[in-house]
Amino acid sequence: MVQGVANWNTEQTEEWLQSYVEDWVSFYQKHTSDGKVASYIPVLQEADPDDLGISIIGKNGISIRAGDSDIPFTIQSISKVLSFIVACMERGVSYMLDRVDVEPAGEAFNSIMHLEMKQLKKPFNPLINAGAITVTSILEGRTSDERLRPMFDLLEKMLGYRPKINVDVYESERDSSMRNRAIGYYLLEIGFLESDLNITLETYFKQCSIEATVDDLARIGLILANDGVNPDTDEEIIPRQVARIAKALMLTCGMYDASGKFATYVGIPAKSGVSGGIIAAAPPRVRDEDLPFLEGCGIGVYGPALDDRGNSIAGIRLLRHIAKQWDLSIF
Amino acid sequence: MVQGVANWNTEQTEEWLQSYVEDWVSFYQKHTSDGKVASYIPVLQEADPDDLGISIIGKNGISIRAGDSDIPFTIQSISKVLSFIVACMERGVSYMLDRVDVEPAGEAFNSIMHLEMKQLKKPFNPLINAGAITVTSILEGRTSDERLRPMFDLLEKMLGYRPKINVDVYESERDSSMRNRAIGYYLLEIGFLESDLNITLETYFKQCSIEATVDDLARIGLILANDGVNPDTDEEIIPRQVARIAKALMLTCGMYDASGKFATYVGIPAKSGVSGGIIAAAPPRVRDEDLPFLEGCGIGVYGPALDDRGNSIAGIRLLRHIAKQWDLSIF
Amino acid sequence: MVQGVANWNTEQTEEWLQSYVEDWVSFYQKHTSDGKVASYIPVLQEADPDDLGISIIGKNGISIRAGDSDIPFTIQSISKVLSFIVACMERGVSYMLDRVDVEPAGEAFNSIMHLEMKQLKKPFNPLINAGAITVTSILEGRTSDERLRPMFDLLEKMLGYRPKINVDVYESERDSSMRNRAIGYYLLEIGFLESDLNITLETYFKQCSIEATVDDLARIGLILANDGVNPDTDEEIIPRQVARIAKALMLTCGMYDASGKFATYVGIPAKSGVSGGIIAAAPPRVRDEDLPFLEGCGIGVYGPALDDRGNSIAGIRLLRHIAKQWDLSIF
Amino acid sequence: MVQGVANWNTEQTEEWLQSYVEDWVSFYQKHTSDGKVASYIPVLQEADPDDLGISIIGKNGISIRAGDSDIPFTIQSISKVLSFIVACMERGVSYMLDRVDVEPAGEAFNSIMHLEMKQLKKPFNPLINAGAITVTSILEGRTSDERLRPMFDLLEKMLGYRPKINVDVYESERDSSMRNRAIGYYLLEIGFLESDLNITLETYFKQCSIEATVDDLARIGLILANDGVNPDTDEEIIPRQVARIAKALMLTCGMYDASGKFATYVGIPAKSGVSGGIIAAAPPRVRDEDLPFLEGCGIGVYGPALDDRGNSIAGIRLLRHIAKQWDLSIF
Repeated sequence: MVQGVANWNTEQTEEWLQSYVEDWVSFYQKHTSDGKVASYIPVLQEADPDDLGISIIGKNGISIRAGDSDIPFTIQSISKVLSFIVACMERGVSYMLDRVDVEPAGEAFNSIMHLEMKQLKKPFNPLINAGAITVTSILEGRTSDERLRPMFDLLEKMLGYRPKINVDVYESERDSSMRNRAIGYYLLEIGFLESDLNITLETYFKQCSIEATVDDLARIGLILANDGVNPDTDEEIIPRQVARIAKALMLTCGMYDASGKFATYVGIPAKSGVSGGIIAAAPPRVRDEDLPFLEGCGIGVYGPALDDRGNSIAGIRLLRHIAKQWDLSIF
Repeated sequence: MVQGVANWNTEQTEEWLQSYVEDWVSFYQKHTSDGKVASYIPVLQEADPDDLGISIIGKNGISIRAGDSDIPFTIQSISKVLSFIVACMERGVSYMLDRVDVEPAGEAFNSIMHLEMKQLKKPFNPLINAGAITVTSILEGRTSDERLRPMFDLLEKMLGYRPKINVDVYESERDSSMRNRAIGYYLLEIGFLESDLNITLETYFKQCSIEATVDDLARIGLILANDGVNPDTDEEIIPRQVARIAKALMLTCGMYDASGKFATYVGIPAKSGVSGGIIAAAPPRVRDEDLPFLEGCGIGVYGPALDDRGNSIAGIRLLRHIAKQWDLSIF
Repeated sequence: MVQGVANWNTEQTEEWLQSYVEDWVSFYQKHTSDGKVASYIPVLQEADPDDLGISIIGKNGISIRAGDSDIPFTIQSISKVLSFIVACMERGVSYMLDRVDVEPAGEAFNSIMHLEMKQLKKPFNPLINAGAITVTSILEGRTSDERLRPMFDLLEKMLGYRPKINVDVYESERDSSMRNRAIGYYLLEIGFLESDLNITLETYFKQCSIEATVDDLARIGLILANDGVNPDTDEEIIPRQVARIAKALMLTCGMYDASGKFATYVGIPAKSGVSGGIIAAAPPRVRDEDLPFLEGCGIGVYGPALDDRGNSIAGIRLLRHIAKQWDLSIF
Repeated sequence: MVQGVANWNTEQTEEWLQSYVEDWVSFYQKHTSDGKVASYIPVLQEADPDDLGISIIGKNGISIRAGDSDIPFTIQSISKVLSFIVACMERGVSYMLDRVDVEPAGEAFNSIMHLEMKQLKKPFNPLINAGAITVTSILEGRTSDERLRPMFDLLEKMLGYRPKINVDVYESERDSSMRNRAIGYYLLEIGFLESDLNITLETYFKQCSIEATVDDLARIGLILANDGVNPDTDEEIIPRQVARIAKALMLTCGMYDASGKFATYVGIPAKSGVSGGIIAAAPPRVRDEDLPFLEGCGIGVYGPALDDRGNSIAGIRLLRHIAKQWDLSIF
């Protein structure tokens, strides 16, 4: 008998599920003290380490929200999924996969050495910095704003509003992220960049600084879970093949050095960011009839206290618990 | 309209699907000439590079077999999945996960350097040689035969017969695989091995030399797809949690350096061996109603001509085609 | 009986030695066709690959010059020796050795990965790019010209004239050397740089672009060979301890990835640059009485056709021949 | 005015120098407590960490001995110099240099990863384990004793007696050094070994277990310093070219990861072993007239307390002090 869904049936209301999720959030909220807020971008340090919030939106229309779910945060590395999707939509999947591989790296997300050590012909994957900066260099447009317009258009289609860039975070990243500049110059040297480095980095820092809430992430996650189709309108917002690839990448490479553990223990395609956000896209699956979200759901989590891999420490544990309770694993 | 399932309905027979698969096999059989039979174990070189065979067994009872499906071959690295499962059953999952990580390595399957370079506390995962040898060192028993008995018991339960070790292949591997000995001594030095190195290597070479057919692999794959339960008898042969972890590992690390590409393009948990075998376990999923194998299936492939990553070159392409036609991807 | 010194005695004149060196140069000049002019800085490609020139100045006052000895060239990596010497003179040896190690790297001169892979506390040595840029960041001064003034003062003391920066080469390097920028940002990130990156790189590219002739290199080499003392005036221009460390570094790390081979086959402290220059400092030694340059000498070589390690291909062979003939090895 | 040689002149006796060295040894003996006896070979742990002894033998006939100079110890890695010399004498220098490079590695002496990472065509140099085992595999002979006979012949010629193998140490190494077995199997796999691995390792462990005293090391060092010629008999025991290469290797690669620092701070070709022995060969040089040992000398040191690089901690400091006082540096 699975906790939280013991008597699941069509009469059960959101409120009933909601109360479970609230309990779980308040339980795991205490775990935030095991982690630490990211320090490498100065402005990010201002986040409240105690925060923990979640939003879950099912294809069946059920929407649950618990904890600190109203706090906006910058999406950081979660934007790597978006820029890859947009670049695939602009240039085509095969063009992109010729330029960025889709293999887990076995290295830190911000590693530069693997490019040199392996004399790679392309970066390991679009979800580590070297790959993500390469992807951003492929986005079309003369200025960073031009390049980001299709991403914002896509976001507006998915969210119903046009998100904003957090200028403080953007400027803080732009001025502090020497390692990304090092990676950028290295990519330039070895010929991976497709356009001007400064505009590419400006674009990259801006995309990382897009502000969202857990609701936004859940909404995007739901569309990915649903193979790119908005379940409310049945409109295909992201091509099905691109949505599938994005989910495969999230599962194999989305959670930094802990991607394998997340795949094993949670089993949902997900991507985290150093601000403490996590987006998860649980595809539909066949399981016991009395489970919620069998038709798939999107999940957004926010918890800025990170573990030593750079993932939201309480967020990961909360997701693991939910995945287990409601059997969300794709395996 | 998906090729091969245009008019899929409950009346359609195995024969109908069978004819499609036979067409595909004969098409991809020509691709075998793009690959090369493994050379690092002398006896394996005797395989016929033109062979290509497949077996698919669905939870719905449908069974398809095409091409060179009767040829027995040694399972090689596919045994890494089995030894990990057996070790988890003997010692428990948490004992095992304390000793072997579950992260993709970003290195060749037979790499030794990553152990030194990263000063890892445990091998990257059970599906690369360093991890697999560590797992085998944990199997219980004084002799290699004692250690393998539970694996053979498990295989007998799944297959209905007790497979054999190919002694020629075993002796060839034992006498030629200096790299595995190097890895073994290195593991011994850094304290990862839990038992005598020589018995461990003997056990390891024996498990690699277990002989099977594509039917056997399909049968095991089906049970994994079905979370460890034999669909014919409803008996849980492998604990559900272990079956799930095995599938997660197969998806993230099962296809050597091409695991990410296989996850992206095919999307089915699978494990390959240098003899040219591939086992795949496609879990049930929710998709268009007119697709076969929606309730999950197991697939066994044999094609000894390998690509430069060590995977069956025609086997991979055949699986990719089938996965696309019948939408077997978990994403 | 050593060729070229068969009847060596005090009456023998420079002319006699000169004729030998001319023969050797014209012999090894043909070897230039085995190499290639550096391509990574566009302007350097304009050098004539056939050029080969040498200058040898002994403590005994003998001066030999042969081949294309009048062609000015930029000193490139040879400047790393000078900047290390100047920084030691400005800050003291122990300050410097706290910030840069003196170990051979076993990596390419422009490697960035070793910094990450080994999580080094300081760059391997001052003669690879990461170490040299760190050294340059320590030079005192607000502008690049201010920072280079002491180096030019030192050069003027040694050479009797103030060399110039080749502005074309400087601008070409500044605009093309993305890898050095990558290294620079990486050093900034990990906290090795002691001052502004842009000024540091500007200074670094300028020091690389200082123009010299083989006579100039021979003169500097002689002073290093003589432990920092100008043999004509007996003035100590470089502190003895600093000159000694510089020679030790040149021997162990001066010839890129071929430093060990140069130490073994030639045995003279030397430093090369990608423009094709080599400076060598042969300390005095006790050997057969009939050898020239027993009291030590400095050697400058220019030959822009490089081998695949980045050293002047004919220059190395010429030096090896001379070292053997006149037994210049320190071992 | 250099301490200890203030009034150096031909009348000064060994006793006078002896008293200085005794003072220095008793000063540096206290430094032994900063180090630790090697633990990786069990028997070596039985050494007394407080021991410190030295022997210096000059070409001028002066012989000094101070501290714990009578204790026999196994030469361990110092034997790598000997096996390389013997192999060069058996096979010729060019044969050997085709099979082992002479470049500093930038890696730990017992690294295995660099072989894989760089896909080297030969080991970095004969003084790291991978190179030394390769060298030992080239020694001629069917058994380990046959292979070592020429080394013992050479030692007998140099020392006037035939040293012994310490059987306890040999057996302890043979049974415990799993890492060397790992390296051996790896070398076998990549085709570097020229003969049977087991005999090679047996030979290698035996050569490491040869017992010597500081006097023996000083005597060998003197012959190396004197380019292979026994100064007492003027007999060339080691070919001059081989002696020179050995000294170049010792200077660039002899002191593990601290070779560059030793070259910089001490400047004498030297090789250390984990038992705490160091052999040094100071070639003749031209310096102030009132220094002892201007014509070259050999030095043996024993101090089993090691620093974290594996070198005798007090031995290194003592050598550094002596080199400074008597200006023994080759630079």
